[in-house]
Amino acid sequence: MLLHEDRLFPSEPNARKIARSLYAGVRTLPIISPHGHTQASWFAENQPFPDPATLFVQPDHYVFRMLYSQGVSLDDLEIGAPVVKNPRKVWRIFASNYHLFRGTPSRLWLDFAFQELFGIEERLSAKNADACFDVIDAKLKTPEFLPRALFERSNLEVLSTTESPLDALKDHQALRDSGWKARIVPAFRPDPVVDAEFKGFAEGIAELGRQTGEDTLIWKGYLNALRKARLRFKALGCTSTDHGHLTAETADLAEDEAAKLYGNILSGKANSAEIVLFQAQMLTENARMSLEDGLVMQIHPGATRNHNQFVYERYGRDKGCDIPRPTNYVDALRPLLNRFGNEKNLTIILFTLDETAYSRELAPLAGHYPALRLGPAWWFHDSPEGMMRYREQVTETAGFYNTVGFNDDTRAFLSIPARHDVARRIDCAFLARLVAEHRLEEDEAHELAHELTYGLVKKAYKL
Amino acid sequence: MLLHEDRLFPSEPNARKIARSLYAGVRTLPIISPHGHTQASWFAENQPFPDPATLFVQPDHYVFRMLYSQGVSLDDLEIGAPVVKNPRKVWRIFASNYHLFRGTPSRLWLDFAFQELFGIEERLSAKNADACFDVIDAKLKTPEFLPRALFERSNLEVLSTTESPLDALKDHQALRDSGWKARIVPAFRPDPVVDAEFKGFAEGIAELGRQTGEDTLIWKGYLNALRKARLRFKALGCTSTDHGHLTAETADLAEDEAAKLYGNILSGKANSAEIVLFQAQMLTENARMSLEDGLVMQIHPGATRNHNQFVYERYGRDKGCDIPRPTNYVDALRPLLNRFGNEKNLTIILFTLDETAYSRELAPLAGHYPALRLGPAWWFHDSPEGMMRYREQVTETAGFYNTVGFNDDTRAFLSIPARHDVARRIDCAFLARLVAEHRLEEDEAHELAHELTYGLVKKAYKL
Amino acid sequence: MLLHEDRLFPSEPNARKIARSLYAGVRTLPIISPHGHTQASWFAENQPFPDPATLFVQPDHYVFRMLYSQGVSLDDLEIGAPVVKNPRKVWRIFASNYHLFRGTPSRLWLDFAFQELFGIEERLSAKNADACFDVIDAKLKTPEFLPRALFERSNLEVLSTTESPLDALKDHQALRDSGWKARIVPAFRPDPVVDAEFKGFAEGIAELGRQTGEDTLIWKGYLNALRKARLRFKALGCTSTDHGHLTAETADLAEDEAAKLYGNILSGKANSAEIVLFQAQMLTENARMSLEDGLVMQIHPGATRNHNQFVYERYGRDKGCDIPRPTNYVDALRPLLNRFGNEKNLTIILFTLDETAYSRELAPLAGHYPALRLGPAWWFHDSPEGMMRYREQVTETAGFYNTVGFNDDTRAFLSIPARHDVARRIDCAFLARLVAEHRLEEDEAHELAHELTYGLVKKAYKL
Repeated sequence: MLLHEDRLFPSEPNARKIARSLYAGVRTLPIISPHGHTQASWFAENQPFPDPATLFVQPDHYVFRMLYSQGVSLDDLEIGAPVVKNPRKVWRIFASNYHLFRGTPSRLWLDFAFQELFGIEERLSAKNADACFDVIDAKLKTPEFLPRALFERSNLEVLSTTESPLDALKDHQALRDSGWKARIVPAFRPDPVVDAEFKGFAEGIAELGRQTGEDTLIWKGYLNALRKARLRFKALGCTSTDHGHLTAETADLAEDEAAKLYGNILSGKANSAEIVLFQAQMLTENARMSLEDGLVMQIHPGATRNHNQFVYERYGRDKGCDIPRPTNYVDALRPLLNRFGNEKNLTIILFTLDETAYSRELAPLAGHYPALRLGPAWWFHDSPEGMMRYREQVTETAGFYNTVGFNDDTRAFLSIPARHDVARRIDCAFLARLVAEHRLEEDEAHELAHELTYGLVKKAYKL
Repeated sequence: MLLHEDRLFPSEPNARKIARSLYAGVRTLPIISPHGHTQASWFAENQPFPDPATLFVQPDHYVFRMLYSQGVSLDDLEIGAPVVKNPRKVWRIFASNYHLFRGTPSRLWLDFAFQELFGIEERLSAKNADACFDVIDAKLKTPEFLPRALFERSNLEVLSTTESPLDALKDHQALRDSGWKARIVPAFRPDPVVDAEFKGFAEGIAELGRQTGEDTLIWKGYLNALRKARLRFKALGCTSTDHGHLTAETADLAEDEAAKLYGNILSGKANSAEIVLFQAQMLTENARMSLEDGLVMQIHPGATRNHNQFVYERYGRDKGCDIPRPTNYVDALRPLLNRFGNEKNLTIILFTLDETAYSRELAPLAGHYPALRLGPAWWFHDSPEGMMRYREQVTETAGFYNTVGFNDDTRAFLSIPARHDVARRIDCAFLARLVAEHRLEEDEAHELAHELTYGLVKKAYKL
Repeated sequence: MLLHEDRLFPSEPNARKIARSLYAGVRTLPIISPHGHTQASWFAENQPFPDPATLFVQPDHYVFRMLYSQGVSLDDLEIGAPVVKNPRKVWRIFASNYHLFRGTPSRLWLDFAFQELFGIEERLSAKNADACFDVIDAKLKTPEFLPRALFERSNLEVLSTTESPLDALKDHQALRDSGWKARIVPAFRPDPVVDAEFKGFAEGIAELGRQTGEDTLIWKGYLNALRKARLRFKALGCTSTDHGHLTAETADLAEDEAAKLYGNILSGKANSAEIVLFQAQMLTENARMSLEDGLVMQIHPGATRNHNQFVYERYGRDKGCDIPRPTNYVDALRPLLNRFGNEKNLTIILFTLDETAYSRELAPLAGHYPALRLGPAWWFHDSPEGMMRYREQVTETAGFYNTVGFNDDTRAFLSIPARHDVARRIDCAFLARLVAEHRLEEDEAHELAHELTYGLVKKAYKL
């Protein structure tokens, strides 16, 4: 057996018993996945996943960054290749290095998928690499393992993908048209037309104009184009926007200043301070639009993208070489909050890669401003210890009700149930400690476990 | 029952048993409250607290900030109103939102007061809101619940309030004159005449001159005026000063530079760097005065005051919208420490709202400089998890003896016994873990529990 | 008894049982000490340690900084004196203040040495100060307590000291020549000829030229001289370099820029930004040399040296008044990493005094770049809580295999076995929790305990 029934629960028997009981109440609740990076095309096309390496290694930057850190070549893993040519070879490298994942969340997610989906009960290793490959590969060729079948089996109530405003959303449209009853919706992520350093930014602005019939070369037209794009997403079920900036800077410029800044940005001559200022202003503009159209705003700051120039140039974006940086919220968010922070009909969900902000800035902010909520432990911190630190450092100041449940934020579809299971277990472990220490009564903990798993995420994301 | 006898102790039975035994030794020790924001007038006038809402909701920014964060209107809570007109309505809103406080220290404090003082044993809710209101309201009208009676019942040995140098201290004088034997003393907080951005700063400087007969328009006169004001406080039992600055910056200017800077500040034309520099210099000046008059210095930096402009303008200061910020100590304190850090007869107690400074800067500084001590976990961190992190991150480098016991720092009088009880329990829980892990022997833990509760605070604050 | 058999293990019986079993497997493994500040001369000369005060108090800044922080005079402790004149008096001060070390790692280290080496089983105090002094003093005069005998008894497989490039290494040479079979090697620490603010920098550069026959007044000659010095160290068993900078800044200048900067540095007219830039460039130069000669690089940034000017001027360097500061890695290391971070044949071991970097920057960097590894919890964080935080915050992102075992980094020779014992116990306690929470299987934990104690350090340091 790869998975123990009591995994992630406290080892102290009394607290463990409480955790078990709490978990029993939420284990089978439907999964709400309001933020992530799976592909709508998988479900629209419903083609089999080609092989175990393409499924488990190639899309998962957590997996191949660890292998790379220990000297495995990204070429040998065929990272970035359009098709994995030698999946068995890739799989063997992965299997023979499986010990590297000891103590990491990847190991928990992978073991969950191996056992729960593929019935594998023996730890992956160089020895059983081929056998495991064959088991998985064979199953992937069966109808039960087609994307839609996997989706249905996974207890997903709703799944959100993340798309550019320029995306035609044809896969989302196709899903709607197909009559398949699964709820898969897009989130609106305008980075490509907001971040002047994004590859193809100028073309993106032009394309946005074409798609919306607005003159995106002027400020008002640009804003109108974004409004229209948001509504187009909303018509396909979208309930949220997402903003991935280097910092959490916001600005609240006068209209003429903003228009002038936009002109400067379009000229291609803006300096880096202006580029940042423009992104900062666009958070405030998007907040304003959210007040109009009701979309929930997510801010995901603090990743230094493509830190490793060699890897970026050779293998592209999202290849495991984004590194977190210190992130200030208290000053950075002030312009936006002084404009819209007191709005009860606005929801802005804050994330961080800088855990020092939890107790110092984020919990105090979310425990005060009506418009703010805190997203769950994110990315490198989406792990048992990371989630536990989040609850320990956030709850006392922000309470539970200013948080929004769990996000898996994954590119690896099969890890979704695994990740939600880890989150549920850790939340139950945290609540169990509060109960065992008589800081919370058990009936309250049961109610909270349900909220943390299901209630809060539905409410915050309007899903 | 709202309170379990073993609350906040570790759930592991062996450690819990040790914690119980340690706590039994300190549970009934007198309370020393060396820093807080209760009103001397309550005790001088000894009028009944008007009603439950005025007692529990209106003065407690922890309480109403949480309600506000979830969309409750501050107007509906009558925050900032001179008199609460509809206390039962305010109480009902509070009671029906009591679940928001799950997992927060407010919940622990409130339940303690409800049960220990008012005999309420059922969790507050919308259902029992009126019944609880009536129970509390009726008791508040009895002689046993007058402020002095509550004080006497609370086992307080000494209580410090915090006052401006401009305060006439008539309530403190009246308390002395009344012959009532309780020890209530003021702490000297010069922010209004040190922070040039404080509302009414210029008038304050003038008033300080009038009160002391010094020419506060020149540097020497200003310093003399402060010296006299300190002595006036000292004559009424004051043993400490308190300094609430945005940063921990200190300076050690030559006398003529300081005099020139002061002139610039008085002119009203100082820029923000000069305003900060003046506050920095004043920390060093106050340290110099402390060497003369023996007052203990407290530095409380790192709060971004009135972050929410709308709330500040409409409801005033201290309305739950102060937000912590990153705070540097290693560079900021250097000028002061190089001047006075090696003085054995000086005590400077450092606080922080930035927990990252505990292990990185504060414990290393306090574990070296004779003049430094560390204040307890403060404000947002005055909570079970916050206090535990404090002990875990501070003790190994600073030891126990460079800390100064507990501060409740509260505006909510009835929370004082509750807060001290939480602190005692957490300290005992921490010590119990050290004993259970054989890092400390039990006799030492008993001695330390007494020090952390009673001995260190009396010594550090000279109380 | 000062030491409990189960010290530092979790108190929960199931986890404790697992920890015991893991520890049993690593308890007697040889000690690899790849980084520290003991003196080769002790072993070359093999003279008895003079007395208990000279052995335990005088060299240990952890010990005397704590005493100083509580008002003990450094003069009374004879800190910085070439010979301790009144060791019994120093010892009595130390003994009568032994309670100050409660809860600190110093207490664990000292008790270990007292009991394990000197057979003392009673807690040190004012009462038994003389008796303990006499026991230790008497033993120090016996052949069994000569430095070489102590070394042999301590189960050390290899011990590294840290030396300047200017050091003649005659003690190391003498050790080799003596035929004594112990393995004691130097580490190459070029700070004195890289940090332009180091006392005697200019003379050092000249001396380096004399020693190597290179013209160190020009850039190429300077680099060649360093290369030769590294090889001289390597010939005596050195496998690593060490770099103690104020920040983690690195640079990758073009050759002519670097040469020009070097000229500027030599001129004595460089400003502080240039001094930092030069150190930054020298990290990259040393990385380049490591690729040639195979020496492993250690970077120890983030200490504000000699924070207390009075103590520095009167007692000198390394007197307990270095204070950690916030340290950025994500931007600072980028130039070096973009140059050499993808090299599989290079090992750079990163340390920090800023724990906030563990989960935010260091683990993400080490979990990606092939050239990076993470050093253990360092200095103020080399403590039970500090080591546990390290494992908790590092493991999930960097895994175990991007770490390098334990460093004692000590000046106090007798604390070496004590410190390694603490590290082994904490690692076993951490692994035991993972096993008890079913996040790792027990066979894996045994394998990892061996790696964390012995395997990883030998591999990373090539020892």
